[in-house]
Formats: sequence, C-alpha cells, structure tokens
Amino acid sequence: MARWQPGTRERLQAVALRLFAEQGFEQTTVAEIAAAAEVTERTFFRHFADKREVLFAGQDDFLALFIDPITAAPADTAPFELIARSLDAAGDYFPHDRRPFSRVRQTIIDAEPSLGERELGKLATLKVRLGEVLRDRGVPEPAATLAAETGVTVFHLSFQQWIAPGEDRSLATIARERLDALTSLVATGRTVGGTSE
Amino acid sequence: MARWQPGTRERLQAVALRLFAEQGFEQTTVAEIAAAAEVTERTFFRHFADKREVLFAGQDDFLALFIDPITAAPADTAPFELIARSLDAAGDYFPHDRRPFSRVRQTIIDAEPSLGERELGKLATLKVRLGEVLRDRGVPEPAATLAAETGVTVFHLSFQQWIAPGEDRSLATIARERLDALTSLVATGRTVGGTSE
Repeated sequence: MARWQPGTRERLQAVALRLFAEQGFEQTTVAEIAAAAEVTERTFFRHFADKREVLFAGQDDFLALFIDPITAAPADTAPFELIARSLDAAGDYFPHDRRPFSRVRQTIIDAEPSLGERELGKLATLKVRLGEVLRDRGVPEPAATLAAETGVTVFHLSFQQWIAPGEDRSLATIARERLDALTSLVATGRTVGGTSE
Repeated sequence: MARWQPGTRERLQAVALRLFAEQGFEQTTVAEIAAAAEVTERTFFRHFADKREVLFAGQDDFLALFIDPITAAPADTAPFELIARSLDAAGDYFPHDRRPFSRVRQTIIDAEPSLGERELGKLATLKVRLGEVLRDRGVPEPAATLAAETGVTVFHLSFQQWIAPGEDRSLATIARERLDALTSLVATGRTVGGTSE
C-alpha cells in the first residue's frame, strides 16, 4: 500500500472513532485501528502520537481559532465584542457536517473519565490563552480573566447544545443566543437593583 | 482521654493541615494525624471518613450557603440579583480569620492532582445545584444555566483573589467587584456594537 495515501489521517480518525464507540476506548488497540484502516501501525504513528491523540489532534488549530479574531480586531474593539468574534469564528470550525463526528466523540469522552479530564484541560488552556491575549491588548484585570472565563463558558454550553439530540441550528447561532441571554441576565439584574442596593 | 472532647474535630483538622503542608498529603497517614492530635485513629474516623475528607468536609453546608439565599428571595428577584445574594452569603462563610486556613488548604490541593479534581468536582456540583434551584424558581434556559455557571465562575475567581498573597479585602467585596466588572464588560460590549452589528 502507498505510504502517503491522501485521506489516510481522516480514515484512521473515522475508523478509530467507530471502534472506540463500538468496543470502548480502553479496549481498542492501535493495532486494531491500523488493521481496520488497512495501514501499518507505523503509518498510524506517523499521524498520531497515540490513540488518545485521535480524539484531541488539532489543539493548536482549535486555540488559534479563538485567538486569531481577537488579535486581528481593531484596537478599540470592546472586550465583550472580542469574545463574540471569537465565538463566531469557533462556529465556523464546527460546520453542520462535523456534528455527527462531534456527537460520537463526546459519547466516547463521556464514557472515560481520563478523556473527560483531558477535554477539560483543553478548555482550561483556552481560558488561559484568551486571558493572555486580552491582557496583551490592554484589557485590565479582572475584566480580562472574566471575559476569557465567560467566553469559554458560553462556548462550552453552546457546544453541548449544538451536539444535543435534535438540535440543528449552527454553533454560531447558539453561541449568539447565549451571549444575548447573558447580556439580558446582567442588564436585568442591575435594573432591579443588583449593585445599587 | 475523653471520647468527645470539645474542639476535637477542629484540632484534627488543624493538625492534619499542618502535616499535609509539611510532608505532603500522600505521605501523611491517619495514624500520624491521630497521634499528633493526641486521639486514637478510631476517634479520627468518628469525625472524618478518610484523610481527604479533612479537606472537603462540610460540602453540604457549602452548597446550602449558595442555595438558601436564592430560595429565600422574593419571587420577583431578578436572576442576576439572586446570584449576587448567593455570593454575598458565600462571603460570610469565609471570614477574614479563615483566610490562613484557606491559603494552606489551597497549597495542599494544588500540589496533588487528585485533590484538585475533587475541588473542581465540588464546584461542578455547585453549578448543577444552582441551575436546578434557578429553574425551580421559573428562570428559563439558557438563562438559568448561564447564571449558575457565571455565579460559580465569579465565586471561583473571587476566591482565588481572596487567598492571593497580600489581599486583605473581604470575599464579598471582591465578588461584588467582579460582578460589577462583568456588568461593565457586557454593557460596554453592546454599546460598541456587539450584538447589533
């Protein structure tokens, strides 16, 4: 077989996901994944450091997705608008045809605590990086950290909704709805006397 | 020695904390804690299920602290104001003289990943409970979950600041400052054109 068949990486990913879902993550070996994808183990390891990386590959791309719209925005863009732009860009990274993959991936992660922790670690890294890039733009504390935390929370809740059974709206639409809900929540709280009591 | 000396629980807690800090959580045994507190191991286990519970005892009280002000509030209280009341009450639970304990406890938790996960689990439970109690009051989704997540995020960030070196403001003051920062963040984002673009 050819050493660098086009689409090998994607095929390995699809096959691994199917095997993880069918027989469990722990129970699935790299040898099985490679055999099912009709490549050698050596080829598998050319694409992924280990079987866990099949589920977490592309973390740098994932982070850049949120960070790049912030670094690209005009200097006077308000922090909350930076977060909104970040979430819009993240929406583009998860198009409709990726949803079945994301749903299966989440099922696998939910079934294995160590994978769940890795996923939370990914989101924690995103919070740290967003906070850094906001501070680099001159957003003061505690606003920078709050904006970063809030942005990741909105992303996480929106993503959970995006993969919920029966949901067919885009991730960007869901995230905008949640940002608007947060705006209403905070605005209503003040009017009724939250901070002025 | 007396079986139910007053203050035994508090003495066990103080002694355990000192030993965990001095020699590490994993390296410290219940036998050592009991000996240093001049009680039997049996007495230790009458107060705590295991050594980890010395650090996590009182979780029900901790949850009630956030929940009770919400269930006690008038029916028309805005959700964000409910969160503010919750944070005020939490502030009372962490008075100034508890800060040295909280600082040492955090150092111990930060040094041991399994304790860090337990601590995150505690905050995750708080998010779930807050969301439930808000929905019970008729707060719709996604506002209820957003309010719960935001409240716990503000609490967590405020608590981290409260135990930071040199910090001497009250937890309630720090939490209010962060709620106000969140309000400004969201309000400014809208003005500059966040959701109206």
